Amino acid sequence: MRDCHLEVARWLDALQVDARIDAAGNLRALYPPRSKAPRLLIGSHLDTVPRAGAYDGVLGVAIGIALMEELRGRELPFAIEVIGFSEEEGVRFGIPFIGSRALVGRVDRELLKVQDAFGVTIQEAIENFGLLPSDLPEARLKDNTLGYLEFHIEQGPVLERLNMALAAVEAVAGQSRIELTFSGSSNHAGTTPMNLRRDAIAGAAEWIGVVERVAQETSGLVATVGKIVVKPGAANVIASEARLTLDIRHSSDDLRTGALENLLHQAREIAARRDLSMKENILLDQRAVAMDPLLVGIIEAAIAKSGSTTHRMVSGAGHDAMILAPEVPSAMIFLRSPGGISHDPKESVEPADVEKAIECGLHLLDLLASSPEFMKRTRLA
Amino acid sequence: MRDCHLEVARWLDALQVDARIDAAGNLRALYPPRSKAPRLLIGSHLDTVPRAGAYDGVLGVAIGIALMEELRGRELPFAIEVIGFSEEEGVRFGIPFIGSRALVGRVDRELLKVQDAFGVTIQEAIENFGLLPSDLPEARLKDNTLGYLEFHIEQGPVLERLNMALAAVEAVAGQSRIELTFSGSSNHAGTTPMNLRRDAIAGAAEWIGVVERVAQETSGLVATVGKIVVKPGAANVIASEARLTLDIRHSSDDLRTGALENLLHQAREIAARRDLSMKENILLDQRAVAMDPLLVGIIEAAIAKSGSTTHRMVSGAGHDAMILAPEVPSAMIFLRSPGGISHDPKESVEPADVEKAIECGLHLLDLLASSPEFMKRTRLA
Repeated sequence: MRDCHLEVARWLDALQVDARIDAAGNLRALYPPRSKAPRLLIGSHLDTVPRAGAYDGVLGVAIGIALMEELRGRELPFAIEVIGFSEEEGVRFGIPFIGSRALVGRVDRELLKVQDAFGVTIQEAIENFGLLPSDLPEARLKDNTLGYLEFHIEQGPVLERLNMALAAVEAVAGQSRIELTFSGSSNHAGTTPMNLRRDAIAGAAEWIGVVERVAQETSGLVATVGKIVVKPGAANVIASEARLTLDIRHSSDDLRTGALENLLHQAREIAARRDLSMKENILLDQRAVAMDPLLVGIIEAAIAKSGSTTHRMVSGAGHDAMILAPEVPSAMIFLRSPGGISHDPKESVEPADVEKAIECGLHLLDLLASSPEFMKRTRLA
Repeated sequence: MRDCHLEVARWLDALQVDARIDAAGNLRALYPPRSKAPRLLIGSHLDTVPRAGAYDGVLGVAIGIALMEELRGRELPFAIEVIGFSEEEGVRFGIPFIGSRALVGRVDRELLKVQDAFGVTIQEAIENFGLLPSDLPEARLKDNTLGYLEFHIEQGPVLERLNMALAAVEAVAGQSRIELTFSGSSNHAGTTPMNLRRDAIAGAAEWIGVVERVAQETSGLVATVGKIVVKPGAANVIASEARLTLDIRHSSDDLRTGALENLLHQAREIAARRDLSMKENILLDQRAVAMDPLLVGIIEAAIAKSGSTTHRMVSGAGHDAMILAPEVPSAMIFLRSPGGISHDPKESVEPADVEKAIECGLHLLDLLASSPEFMKRTRLA
């Protein structure tokens, strides 16, 4: 991460803009330097998953810096602060968005105690990096913050299928994650007639079919069983246990929780009919976060001005913008992901789409500068 | 196994019958000692699976010895040889029925080279036990062998459901075992719309439903998916691979292979419709083995004479009788398994059912002794 900070700082040096690292390990750079003007934040995260691609996160920081560069000294009625967030993926501590949480005061004592796989706490990791946890309050959003913009690769196949370069993100989907366990009895695969079985795999398979059908029939819903572990797991033994996960997301919390209730109800019915027992364990219940409607509308206008077709979409993945949105007007611009591939070395982005994004960004800055409604909504206005 | 042999030899000592261990590690005991009369074999296996119950195999040897005891010196027109087979379960070398294979000349050079997990070959294991592989030909069935009878716990729930103590086994089911792999592409569970997925788990789940339906609709067929392993196996990632096993059994080979072809055809259809690829790997294709019809009929008569209702059934599990059947008239008597439980410390058997089995066995010996048809069919007659 230190090498990454040095590289990004080198890009900023060329613009005579200083980078500093806040107490949560976020890289922050203000343009014009030392400006007291209300500020617009532009950024994304600098960390990655293991075996990652080259664009997830850092592209949004690079586009922020490119926009500074394209302004070529031109001043706007607001300052621009580029942010490269730390620890968005949650790889080291199992907790995502640590960098952006610091901007909204959500890196508290409890969070600082969380340990990595080697027993190092977040507090210690901050200290080991040469930073002071006591400085965390200084990482908080300034009162004169106007908003937060995040450019990010889509990480999905939608824009490619639509043959579009960019999209305005109107919401980050809410998400439930549950673990479900069907239990029956293990028995000999050769000596137990079909009608006397309590087969946990067969019950799980029936429910996986239900999950898929419900998601297909509900517009905007995605539901995934990505993991299934069975016991005892031998070819000639009927399974006594099947433990599986469900990941379910929608921009409407009511629709998501309604679909989840329906799926759990059907799981219980399947279990009862098959004389299995069924246990559920809710691992995550995260509400949907709407992006700022004014910003989303202006982003659409900027996309149109840059000559692209406009498209609104919901982000199925979580992003730093979701963390900042409750405190400051936030919005995102997605760039097309070739093949929908992400979190993989094959992740890529079209250079022409990046050019479009920068062009759109410049239009966006101008549109924001000339929007009285945008300019009057500083955080504490 | 040496302790087990000593214990069984002690039971035989009381009857003044000697036990010897043949070159394949089978315990063999002839009554009357040194008889030259045609011989009837009665036995089962002495080895077990790990964490086994107390009855699988050894009960059949114990019943053979009990029948010798019940004869109280009475002579029949044939000798009785009790056999306690070695290595029926295949735990150590992954190859079942090694003991009974020796009686039909199927412990050949190739088999002797097979190694256990520590690299010890079957040849070396025989030598380490103090036996001579060069003596294996002496373990072969004698030319004057009349037949083979095996008492065994059912290891399934059928007799308990029918409220019956005993059954005559008319065939050992044929069995296919295959491994099937569905491959799609791993993608983000939040950003990939339902209609753009190539979800290997969803394809596998649909096929598991088909397997269950086909088996339920086909009388006597059992089909089991007992193992499924998915990649990458994360809650928030659509699975790119699902590898699963199918175990399918029926007493009719045509019906079994027909059902298998149908299931593979449907798997290919599911894969094609879902844009998945599908690979199959046949691990086992074992034909059904019929028990000797004359012996099965006489067993039914003996069960009736012992005051029980008679029932014929197919064994879904493999047994030593299946190995001997191609060379000598063979048949089995099943004893009810409480709860259908086997290969588990909770495996049990009702003492009253064992009494019934011994009573039935004595009637069986008398019926065989008075059957000219049975007596004239020595192996080389």
